Amino acid sequence: MAMHKNPSSTSMSGLDIAGSFFAPIQQAAPPSPTKRHIKISIIGTGNVGMAIAQTLLTQDLADELALVDALPDKLRGEMLDLQHAAAFLPRTKIVASTDYSVTAASDLCIVTAGARQISGESRLNLLQRNVSLFKKIIPPLVQYSPDAILMIVSNPVDVLTYIAWKLSGFPSNRVIGSGTNLDSSRFRFLIADHLDVNAQDVQAYIIGEHGDSSVALWSSISVGGVPILSFLEKRQIAYEKETLVKIHKEVINCAYEVIQLKGYTSWAVGYSVANLAWSILRDQRGIHPVSVLAKGFHDIDDGEVFLSLPAQLGRGGVLGVINVPISDEEAEHLRRSAKTILEVQEQLGV
Amino acid sequence: MAMHKNPSSTSMSGLDIAGSFFAPIQQAAPPSPTKRHIKISIIGTGNVGMAIAQTLLTQDLADELALVDALPDKLRGEMLDLQHAAAFLPRTKIVASTDYSVTAASDLCIVTAGARQISGESRLNLLQRNVSLFKKIIPPLVQYSPDAILMIVSNPVDVLTYIAWKLSGFPSNRVIGSGTNLDSSRFRFLIADHLDVNAQDVQAYIIGEHGDSSVALWSSISVGGVPILSFLEKRQIAYEKETLVKIHKEVINCAYEVIQLKGYTSWAVGYSVANLAWSILRDQRGIHPVSVLAKGFHDIDDGEVFLSLPAQLGRGGVLGVINVPISDEEAEHLRRSAKTILEVQEQLGV
Amino acid sequence: MAMHKNPSSTSMSGLDIAGSFFAPIQQAAPPSPTKRHIKISIIGTGNVGMAIAQTLLTQDLADELALVDALPDKLRGEMLDLQHAAAFLPRTKIVASTDYSVTAASDLCIVTAGARQISGESRLNLLQRNVSLFKKIIPPLVQYSPDAILMIVSNPVDVLTYIAWKLSGFPSNRVIGSGTNLDSSRFRFLIADHLDVNAQDVQAYIIGEHGDSSVALWSSISVGGVPILSFLEKRQIAYEKETLVKIHKEVINCAYEVIQLKGYTSWAVGYSVANLAWSILRDQRGIHPVSVLAKGFHDIDDGEVFLSLPAQLGRGGVLGVINVPISDEEAEHLRRSAKTILEVQEQLGV
Amino acid sequence: MAMHKNPSSTSMSGLDIAGSFFAPIQQAAPPSPTKRHIKISIIGTGNVGMAIAQTLLTQDLADELALVDALPDKLRGEMLDLQHAAAFLPRTKIVASTDYSVTAASDLCIVTAGARQISGESRLNLLQRNVSLFKKIIPPLVQYSPDAILMIVSNPVDVLTYIAWKLSGFPSNRVIGSGTNLDSSRFRFLIADHLDVNAQDVQAYIIGEHGDSSVALWSSISVGGVPILSFLEKRQIAYEKETLVKIHKEVINCAYEVIQLKGYTSWAVGYSVANLAWSILRDQRGIHPVSVLAKGFHDIDDGEVFLSLPAQLGRGGVLGVINVPISDEEAEHLRRSAKTILEVQEQLGV
Repeated sequence: MAMHKNPSSTSMSGLDIAGSFFAPIQQAAPPSPTKRHIKISIIGTGNVGMAIAQTLLTQDLADELALVDALPDKLRGEMLDLQHAAAFLPRTKIVASTDYSVTAASDLCIVTAGARQISGESRLNLLQRNVSLFKKIIPPLVQYSPDAILMIVSNPVDVLTYIAWKLSGFPSNRVIGSGTNLDSSRFRFLIADHLDVNAQDVQAYIIGEHGDSSVALWSSISVGGVPILSFLEKRQIAYEKETLVKIHKEVINCAYEVIQLKGYTSWAVGYSVANLAWSILRDQRGIHPVSVLAKGFHDIDDGEVFLSLPAQLGRGGVLGVINVPISDEEAEHLRRSAKTILEVQEQLGV
Repeated sequence: MAMHKNPSSTSMSGLDIAGSFFAPIQQAAPPSPTKRHIKISIIGTGNVGMAIAQTLLTQDLADELALVDALPDKLRGEMLDLQHAAAFLPRTKIVASTDYSVTAASDLCIVTAGARQISGESRLNLLQRNVSLFKKIIPPLVQYSPDAILMIVSNPVDVLTYIAWKLSGFPSNRVIGSGTNLDSSRFRFLIADHLDVNAQDVQAYIIGEHGDSSVALWSSISVGGVPILSFLEKRQIAYEKETLVKIHKEVINCAYEVIQLKGYTSWAVGYSVANLAWSILRDQRGIHPVSVLAKGFHDIDDGEVFLSLPAQLGRGGVLGVINVPISDEEAEHLRRSAKTILEVQEQLGV
Repeated sequence: MAMHKNPSSTSMSGLDIAGSFFAPIQQAAPPSPTKRHIKISIIGTGNVGMAIAQTLLTQDLADELALVDALPDKLRGEMLDLQHAAAFLPRTKIVASTDYSVTAASDLCIVTAGARQISGESRLNLLQRNVSLFKKIIPPLVQYSPDAILMIVSNPVDVLTYIAWKLSGFPSNRVIGSGTNLDSSRFRFLIADHLDVNAQDVQAYIIGEHGDSSVALWSSISVGGVPILSFLEKRQIAYEKETLVKIHKEVINCAYEVIQLKGYTSWAVGYSVANLAWSILRDQRGIHPVSVLAKGFHDIDDGEVFLSLPAQLGRGGVLGVINVPISDEEAEHLRRSAKTILEVQEQLGV
Repeated sequence: MAMHKNPSSTSMSGLDIAGSFFAPIQQAAPPSPTKRHIKISIIGTGNVGMAIAQTLLTQDLADELALVDALPDKLRGEMLDLQHAAAFLPRTKIVASTDYSVTAASDLCIVTAGARQISGESRLNLLQRNVSLFKKIIPPLVQYSPDAILMIVSNPVDVLTYIAWKLSGFPSNRVIGSGTNLDSSRFRFLIADHLDVNAQDVQAYIIGEHGDSSVALWSSISVGGVPILSFLEKRQIAYEKETLVKIHKEVINCAYEVIQLKGYTSWAVGYSVANLAWSILRDQRGIHPVSVLAKGFHDIDDGEVFLSLPAQLGRGGVLGVINVPISDEEAEHLRRSAKTILEVQEQLGV
């Protein structure tokens, strides 16, 4: 079922205004194929997918937005609802279909499809339900957009990004998981809220596995470019290690808390993924903690595993990773996460 | 229950970084009250209220956003979800409470609370459920923000805007219903889609009662400033009246269709109301079809009734109404709507 | 002399941070050529060219901006001044050279080079000085960007757009003059200023020859979609023809007045051309009065002449022209302008 | 001479459309004074003042922009040129006058007036010409806007900010010099250009005196939140001290180079000051290196002197200063600058 064109618009066919309203100029040539047309596809039109779609539309990033979902009614409803906002937005073509051909020639495919995380459910438990789903999603995306970048948002994001990579056959720089990008922004919000500064002036990373075993890089926290911990040390201001641990726990609990309160998370992940999309498609070369093939970093050598590391993103996808100095303890933590994920991947036989 | 401040941030209290990180300069004075602080309150954090909240945040209109809802969990979940996006947005204070004191000193109060329109339900049927709700909402809003502008989005919007006006005791220019603003933008989208032009280049109004008996102003349709119907007439191009009627019907059906397909409407109304808020608070003096006290226009003389007319909006609320020439038939149609609404208002005893 | 890369940055070569700071991930592939890279070139870095460049940068339209001028010092100064703002803007590559190879693979080439209009000088007098300049500019632009769209801003714009078209060998839809786009926006400002409405709610066209003999389309003036003149007629409000003529004269005098007062015009033309660039490159299909091959419209049949008409612009350049109904008097006026321009073109032997 | 209202618009008075086009609604009240109206005044409409004006307009920060200059023709020309862009911008009131009454009730007054820096001239040489000018500028600004924040851009900025502070009688948090904000952004650009990263991902400060004796805070340089120098040290990568010194010299030379090449600097300072204005007026609480009363910081105790330090800016002006740890050598450098400036201030007898 394709819905590229609002079918109802054929109701105007009796009134062929378009043909008489505009006239061609002489000696014109037909336009060449619009090679600079930017297209983004979103797979899954649940709360997360639609928050991403709406934020992308508002920031006027794409020339075309394609939505895919298995539920044709929900899908068409969401497409119409976005289209009805046309008078308030720059012109963007919005199409939708249950058929993946609608995604043809995408620059970026954002996969949000997946079972919704149930309150209290660990991210790893979601896995089995999602792997088989990806086997239906990734191959047609690759078929219709062989040059696209894949952005995986579904959870558990690190394993599913690995699976998407394997299913796609893409080079590793073109398969990215949203990973701890949102965790890091929650971390920055909590710090900014306490210090009463602008969250955009706070630099702070959470890396590693998205979820309960993520790693907060304490030494990376800076405010307005001033590293906080070394500031405190130089000024000989005491602080307690437990306090820092507590903040990290709060970041981890954030997602669970929002899910418990409103049933799902949507707005923050929408802004977070739209920000990644912008950095990639406008070739901003910005640095973001996202899930990338982590093998070879911090002595993770056992196998192919995706974990979030501070990566530079641009039109080529992942341009490089900052080999950020971390403590032995933090590195050990990362390797433990890697090992756990590898075991899961082995159990899945992928 | 107030949630102005993220309570969890007290967990950082052991680490009093803020006090040592920033130092005051000498001979400074405490800042005077921030008289130019712009505050918007949204009553009701359902799909419509939150789509408005998110769009307002993205367009960086307000310094402070206050959310009110009767459901404390849902409310806190939505507040946290928006706050977690801080790293991607200009700094805006986001507060939430079930207590209306959180709305104190608002410039604009947007009321979206109300029972959700059920598929197939006429907008008038929603009324009785909503009137009693407004008696709990409007008085505290007025108490805490006596200088605010009220924007009513709940349906049936024309009657509820009248009721909000009566309950508020405000002058009529400070009580506005979102009215046919969204209907008009859907109208513009359908025309633009057929002509393959930018919807922002299409001018077209639907006025009168929001809902099944709205009035499409055919003679007001212009594309790029060129009136379409007189263009066709001057060029002697035939068109069929039924076609035009069909387009109008499609606009009316749009809302029902989206509700049937996805269960509610949200994105388009979010952009639509955010656009009105911008025109008002940034004093843009833009012209929008919104629900205003229509008595005295087009011979509507029987009583106090709100209907959508092309109104100029600015910091003072409604600055004036375009006394747009309409046909006798259209005026008759408006007066019939006015009469129906007045009868409803009498039945309600308001 | 090329200045693609800030030469001074080689001073950091002793500190090869880049190589050690970022590490590649495994199994990555080199990025394919960035086919969606959008590039704009501006020829002439005088006040007009630079106002356009700055506005384009601010609106984040292009991935790359190339500047060309005959004066290498001025050119490098302007490039550096823009580059130094990098911390306040989305990342855009800014390059500059006296050699046209720097413009290679542009999507849009904006030509502003030309002698500055002297106070009191008619636009036609500028011609001879500019034609020979175009013979040096257009051929290398075409050579390096055979698929580009040419936007001519230099005056007298109608003749120079024709000359650019002839020199380029491009189909007519890919050669556009900024024409009366700015005149029309001044017209809209004057009307909006008097009515105290938002200029974006005013639709009004000035078409024909850019300059003293332009044609104001009185019947096209509408405010908020309501045609003003027919409004006045229907309401039987008298207005004087001379008043309208006076407003048009004021638009014509605007440019002369600003030149007399500050020596040149820059800001408004910067916004005007940036707006056209956006409509073209983001395929907005917006309608703008710009200079296009006018042969065949309004019985202009004598020869190939460029005049401003309401044209729809998109990625293909000129997509069509609104065959707007005009009075016999206005059509006669247009044909006189066409005839004058044709005579000039014959005198020039082009 | 005041030019609030475009005088020529009276030419439309014969056509009183406004009065008949809009009609008032019943039971409306006159709008209360628009207390949330944001007004910015710019003193000096040279290249710097106008680049700031244009950037402020584009980012839609103010409801009203007032321009003051001693040259009435230039002033009116610039006002008209900005007004003619109305159709492309959100509605902003733009006024201009040689009389300071036009600045009444400003929230922010930006002073750019001053003799242009001549190629090769030290910033301190500009002083005497500018001090007497400030005696004519500051008192009327204070008289008409007693609650405003003063932002000084004229050079030598540190001394002139002190002088403005003394002349104003304002508390120190409401007098701010643009200081090394632009130097810091040039520093960030040069580092980003070498590393091929986004300049917005680079944090780096130049503090102290704006000009030849500024201080680069090497330890504050971080990319994507990762401190560069400690990164290199931990990875045992050698770098040469001279290289760093060379980069700092290049930043210092930047301004001289641009002035030599194009005659003045404008675009970068325009974005830089507009960015400060936004942080202040939208209460962003961002951190910027700007010139503030530095007494008491880094053992600067001899007298009242303004130097750039990383300051948090918001609606109250300077909210605090980061007491950033610096080396003994850097602190000694700052104190030398302070002493030099104090000596100059004594010579001036201010």
